Amino acid sequence: MHAEQMAEEYPVVTVDSDAMEAARLLAEHRLPGLVVTDQGRPSSILPASQVVRFLVPGYVQDDPSLARVLDESMSDQIAKSLGGKSVGELVRDGTPELAVVDADDTIIEVAAIMARLRCPLAAVMRADQLIGVITASRLLQVALAAE
Amino acid sequence: MHAEQMAEEYPVVTVDSDAMEAARLLAEHRLPGLVVTDQGRPSSILPASQVVRFLVPGYVQDDPSLARVLDESMSDQIAKSLGGKSVGELVRDGTPELAVVDADDTIIEVAAIMARLRCPLAAVMRADQLIGVITASRLLQVALAAE
Repeated sequence: MHAEQMAEEYPVVTVDSDAMEAARLLAEHRLPGLVVTDQGRPSSILPASQVVRFLVPGYVQDDPSLARVLDESMSDQIAKSLGGKSVGELVRDGTPELAVVDADDTIIEVAAIMARLRCPLAAVMRADQLIGVITASRLLQVALAAE
Repeated sequence: MHAEQMAEEYPVVTVDSDAMEAARLLAEHRLPGLVVTDQGRPSSILPASQVVRFLVPGYVQDDPSLARVLDESMSDQIAKSLGGKSVGELVRDGTPELAVVDADDTIIEVAAIMARLRCPLAAVMRADQLIGVITASRLLQVALAAE
């Protein structure tokens, strides 16, 4: 089984995409993260938990008990924290490195690269084109089906 | 909106659960991770990517090009790496800290705790009982629906 056969369609955003749109994509598809491309190349992951970080002011992250005294509603928080921002701004302060594999890589090669990067997703490339994504749970599914 | 209303059912394993069963659960439900309990209390997360790490010998993780020379099939790898192991052994070498919130916590409190721990899941407790889980994408869904 090669990466190409394991790859699935997966929502992709670019570093220039609207942050609010990315949040909607994560919410609608209930995804743990999105693949982010930069000039057509997969460059990073935008985890849903990273978007959640942007909704919460720094002083509340440091002391969650202060959340009780926040005056703003969650919708105000979202508008204020994500409005007008790009996906690039959300991934700037360090998100997980994205595993990138070749369409011809074997399942063990894909697993090895995911394992080394502790990455929950691998972008599958053929000739500089992103042809799909393999999630860690997809890899386990294929591996267990082969038993 | 309080944590209790946001919480959803979610597969849970214990530290004593069979590692192979946990892998099957991740694969079948295509989940990014499972909540792990220890003596009834949520204690950690088992990410699918952590299970993938266990499938790959350390020397191949260090140098993924060696995957090509691995003789064993993926099913042999799975049997060898997960067979007879417990979930506790899989999470032992450091997995993400699990966010634990109270049923009465507000959405901003849940977001604050998830954000601080950079955690993709929050276990929701009422009186020492795990009543459900809030994923980061579920939180975004609720937050965006409130707009």
